[in-house]
Amino acid sequence: MAPPIPLPPLVDQHCHGVVRSALDDRAFEALLTESDRPAAPGTTFFDSQLGFAVRRWCPSLLGLDAHVPPGEYLERRRELGPEEVLRRLLPAAGIGVHLVDTGLPGDLTPPAELAAAGGGTAREIVRLETLAERLAGAAAPGTAAGEYVDGLDAAVLAAARTAAGFKSVVGYRHGLDFDPRPPSPGEVRAAADRWLGARRGGGTVRPRSGVRDGDGRAGGLRGGASPAGGGHGPRLTDPVLLRHLLWQAVRTGLPLQLHTGFGDPDLRLHRCDPLLLTDFLSAVGPAGCPVVLLHGYPYHRGAGYLAHVFPHVYADIGLALSYTGARARTVLAEALELCPFGKLLFSTDAYGLPELYVVGSRLFAGALTELLGGWVADGSWPAGDAERVAAMIAAGNARRVYGLGPGT
Amino acid sequence: MAPPIPLPPLVDQHCHGVVRSALDDRAFEALLTESDRPAAPGTTFFDSQLGFAVRRWCPSLLGLDAHVPPGEYLERRRELGPEEVLRRLLPAAGIGVHLVDTGLPGDLTPPAELAAAGGGTAREIVRLETLAERLAGAAAPGTAAGEYVDGLDAAVLAAARTAAGFKSVVGYRHGLDFDPRPPSPGEVRAAADRWLGARRGGGTVRPRSGVRDGDGRAGGLRGGASPAGGGHGPRLTDPVLLRHLLWQAVRTGLPLQLHTGFGDPDLRLHRCDPLLLTDFLSAVGPAGCPVVLLHGYPYHRGAGYLAHVFPHVYADIGLALSYTGARARTVLAEALELCPFGKLLFSTDAYGLPELYVVGSRLFAGALTELLGGWVADGSWPAGDAERVAAMIAAGNARRVYGLGPGT
Amino acid sequence: MAPPIPLPPLVDQHCHGVVRSALDDRAFEALLTESDRPAAPGTTFFDSQLGFAVRRWCPSLLGLDAHVPPGEYLERRRELGPEEVLRRLLPAAGIGVHLVDTGLPGDLTPPAELAAAGGGTAREIVRLETLAERLAGAAAPGTAAGEYVDGLDAAVLAAARTAAGFKSVVGYRHGLDFDPRPPSPGEVRAAADRWLGARRGGGTVRPRSGVRDGDGRAGGLRGGASPAGGGHGPRLTDPVLLRHLLWQAVRTGLPLQLHTGFGDPDLRLHRCDPLLLTDFLSAVGPAGCPVVLLHGYPYHRGAGYLAHVFPHVYADIGLALSYTGARARTVLAEALELCPFGKLLFSTDAYGLPELYVVGSRLFAGALTELLGGWVADGSWPAGDAERVAAMIAAGNARRVYGLGPGT
Repeated sequence: MAPPIPLPPLVDQHCHGVVRSALDDRAFEALLTESDRPAAPGTTFFDSQLGFAVRRWCPSLLGLDAHVPPGEYLERRRELGPEEVLRRLLPAAGIGVHLVDTGLPGDLTPPAELAAAGGGTAREIVRLETLAERLAGAAAPGTAAGEYVDGLDAAVLAAARTAAGFKSVVGYRHGLDFDPRPPSPGEVRAAADRWLGARRGGGTVRPRSGVRDGDGRAGGLRGGASPAGGGHGPRLTDPVLLRHLLWQAVRTGLPLQLHTGFGDPDLRLHRCDPLLLTDFLSAVGPAGCPVVLLHGYPYHRGAGYLAHVFPHVYADIGLALSYTGARARTVLAEALELCPFGKLLFSTDAYGLPELYVVGSRLFAGALTELLGGWVADGSWPAGDAERVAAMIAAGNARRVYGLGPGT
Repeated sequence: MAPPIPLPPLVDQHCHGVVRSALDDRAFEALLTESDRPAAPGTTFFDSQLGFAVRRWCPSLLGLDAHVPPGEYLERRRELGPEEVLRRLLPAAGIGVHLVDTGLPGDLTPPAELAAAGGGTAREIVRLETLAERLAGAAAPGTAAGEYVDGLDAAVLAAARTAAGFKSVVGYRHGLDFDPRPPSPGEVRAAADRWLGARRGGGTVRPRSGVRDGDGRAGGLRGGASPAGGGHGPRLTDPVLLRHLLWQAVRTGLPLQLHTGFGDPDLRLHRCDPLLLTDFLSAVGPAGCPVVLLHGYPYHRGAGYLAHVFPHVYADIGLALSYTGARARTVLAEALELCPFGKLLFSTDAYGLPELYVVGSRLFAGALTELLGGWVADGSWPAGDAERVAAMIAAGNARRVYGLGPGT
Repeated sequence: MAPPIPLPPLVDQHCHGVVRSALDDRAFEALLTESDRPAAPGTTFFDSQLGFAVRRWCPSLLGLDAHVPPGEYLERRRELGPEEVLRRLLPAAGIGVHLVDTGLPGDLTPPAELAAAGGGTAREIVRLETLAERLAGAAAPGTAAGEYVDGLDAAVLAAARTAAGFKSVVGYRHGLDFDPRPPSPGEVRAAADRWLGARRGGGTVRPRSGVRDGDGRAGGLRGGASPAGGGHGPRLTDPVLLRHLLWQAVRTGLPLQLHTGFGDPDLRLHRCDPLLLTDFLSAVGPAGCPVVLLHGYPYHRGAGYLAHVFPHVYADIGLALSYTGARARTVLAEALELCPFGKLLFSTDAYGLPELYVVGSRLFAGALTELLGGWVADGSWPAGDAERVAAMIAAGNARRVYGLGPGT
């Protein structure tokens, strides 16, 4: 076994808040899957790589033996209560900076509260579709399309003044095979008119489905502890408005995170292949805005290719490591084939459970150590460069891309 | 090396019969490939992962040393004769239950005969396209389309009374990118009318190509020992009828097996990506019918994703292990990334040669032991759960999905 | 660690020439990537698997320690001069035969010069698109389309008399999803008429972009040492003419190399999936021309499938090994899943830098030894067959496919 490679405090460049209230067993288990449906008869979500990883890394932090059965773990968790569980787990993740996507509904810890609990700092990532939906939900009846669009553009600019970056789930809402060009102002206004009209009429609005990432990312919580937050406008799926949001974000120059690869069943995975973004990435190149391809699995090799050929494109491997558990080393290795070492970013994509920060960071650190340590041991890599590259992926690359100063 | 993980008698949830007659060398070799064509000049199908796996596992069962050259092995096989070879090989596979797709032509052992030879039991999987083609072949000239469709629907219902499940090769006949909705009765009748008419006229019927899985799966046997069975109607490729068959099967509630991933050159592999089924899987969810995605390679990670997010979807890894031989452990590992452990099923997809049962089960057992044993050894998995999960994949999951009682 | 498997002198079945002149640091670094753009701010192309592989294998050949920092290596290189660097590096690659794609512009070593420097022999691979563009560039103003097409057909036939094979970059120029049928003579003439007219008018001709493989493969050299060669006609992207070229090459019976998989950002990677060629491969089968699928990554498993089912199809793994460095063993292993062992070919795809021949051959030899040696050690493969298969992939398969006599 290779000796551990020392890592700096991690920059978790994509995560969500933690559910503040106590979770019953069913709600806990529902947060161990990307599915928004119950487990199949005779099965449990604990029987998965993620479930086994939670049982490996978390019990000892709550005073239990590693790998205790799920029932014992859940009992101990109830005994301690949500605040104590958070207090014990989150600091163990070794995360120095959290970049928090605040676009999910529910009673989740906001960035500052998360940072305080974890002993680090936090910055906000603004989810574009949520911004547009909140604005539509808050608009007075009869608001004209032009007025709405002006307000939206102003809201993106305003968000850019404080946010660390933007995020889009256009992969969920349409697929990544969208028209790469910016829509014209007339097209945007017409699309806004249709959308606001549909919202008022209620006629063509698709019912909320409680999906995890596309909309609510809280499928398992629907009957559970934390009802999805209300007050939003209708779900935004109009491709013209989705493209307009992307281009408005690009124009701010802030990093833009794009969901790619797997997620809940609200998406069509083969339409979330990051390679479908090639023409869009070409088109936005001159704008100088970094684009971060989130997750990527099972298309992470393609994401690495895009990061290889486009200077402004970066790849993330967060969610894929948590969900593949004992296989994290191999998945990380695949991401490190074509992706230049200055282009890969760490994240946990943790959501809801503090356990997911622990699992995400432990799997990452372990996989990185074994992988790079193995390459040093067989002579492929020099030891000094392995340490340097590990620090880049763990924190340095994200600090550079998001412009995080040493005090962040 | 990790100690072997004990496995129960396997449930081989997808296999075919064994050729009853003696095979000449060319016919034997033709059953070592998914190709329906001869080997390239200067090459042999023995020079493949499957060929090497046969030479690893089978010679000792016939009294030879492992890895003897192909010529010696074939000579010994001829010496013993097909019945003795079957008697020596099949029981060594350790299979307790065979679920046999009976839709391939040729003089193959029927399920009961196979079970008797192997010392286990067997149940039938009814191939939908073969059912429709046999019915068309047996129909009196001038049979009306409505009458044919009524007969077909009745035949599906009748099959459901005894079969363990259904199988479709719509991936071969059309691709998995079919319209996910059930066709209307009028559309089905019109399609049947066209198809029966073409059959009578012979005009638009595509010539039989002797493909292995799509139709005959016996390409190499065409000039060999076992001529493809005759008496069928024309090849069914009409997408409306193919979809009707799928929906009729779904309505019975029995498990539905779908070919996905690689096979003979009669398919277009990129149109057999299981992710293309996403909308169909969504649509059939409420019907309560389990859907099993067969093979999957090289899209088995996508199949694992579908099994992750849809409660009624299961993944199989059989054929991929046999054909990748020394690489079986890695391929199995990839399947075990997103696929919940209660959702993966074992099979051999063995066809024609008793060797393929041996190779399929040995490669599976070896890969599972090394993989799970390795995860226990490095602390990722607890030993007890590794044994439990191994037994689930080897037999338990299939017993639950197909409702196989302890006596089966 | 497994003992090394002895390899014969390699047949590098796809490579390019070496830049003859001295390269400044920026030009050197630009040849370490498939990108045609500068490295992202704060990053260097040396921080990549290829960069680390160069630092592993090449410094000792120039009298330095392995893994010296890039600056020291470049300094030593400048000190020695390009001829001495070539003289020291190329023979260390152990390549006996170079098949050189001569279709790239720039001041590159022609095949005979490359062979002399490396101590081996060389044959030419003629790039079809370059042939057509050179002919168009040399055509007198007012040349009729029919005359141009006749000249083109004659040029393909003439090239076939001396070339070892043809190569097409239709994947770059259109994507592999082209109409598989040969175009009619009338279509070809009309397309030639449009193309020659556009060339004269200059109106619809796409500006040269300096892309690496599609056109110039020398993006990083644009401001550097070696300007792209001039005098060519306009870039050929017309799908009818591209298909005509493919079919004319097929009719000669010589091996046809097709770019598949990753390359510079001038291609759309998802449109370079070799599986998109399935219908074309079926269509050209009867012509008896071997087709070699180059590179393939990340679709190399699909390329292996095509080589498995089609007798006339072969797979190559060259470029993928160089660019994945420490991961080369795994990438090679994936190629060796479905691909019959008589169907995989070695290459370096080296271009510009002599370092790339060294890296390509060392990574290949190391990966092959570890992989096959590991399979021998765990009992999967017999030792004798491992040596035999290694020699096939290293040289024998290519010798057979390209008809290279023992004197070549």
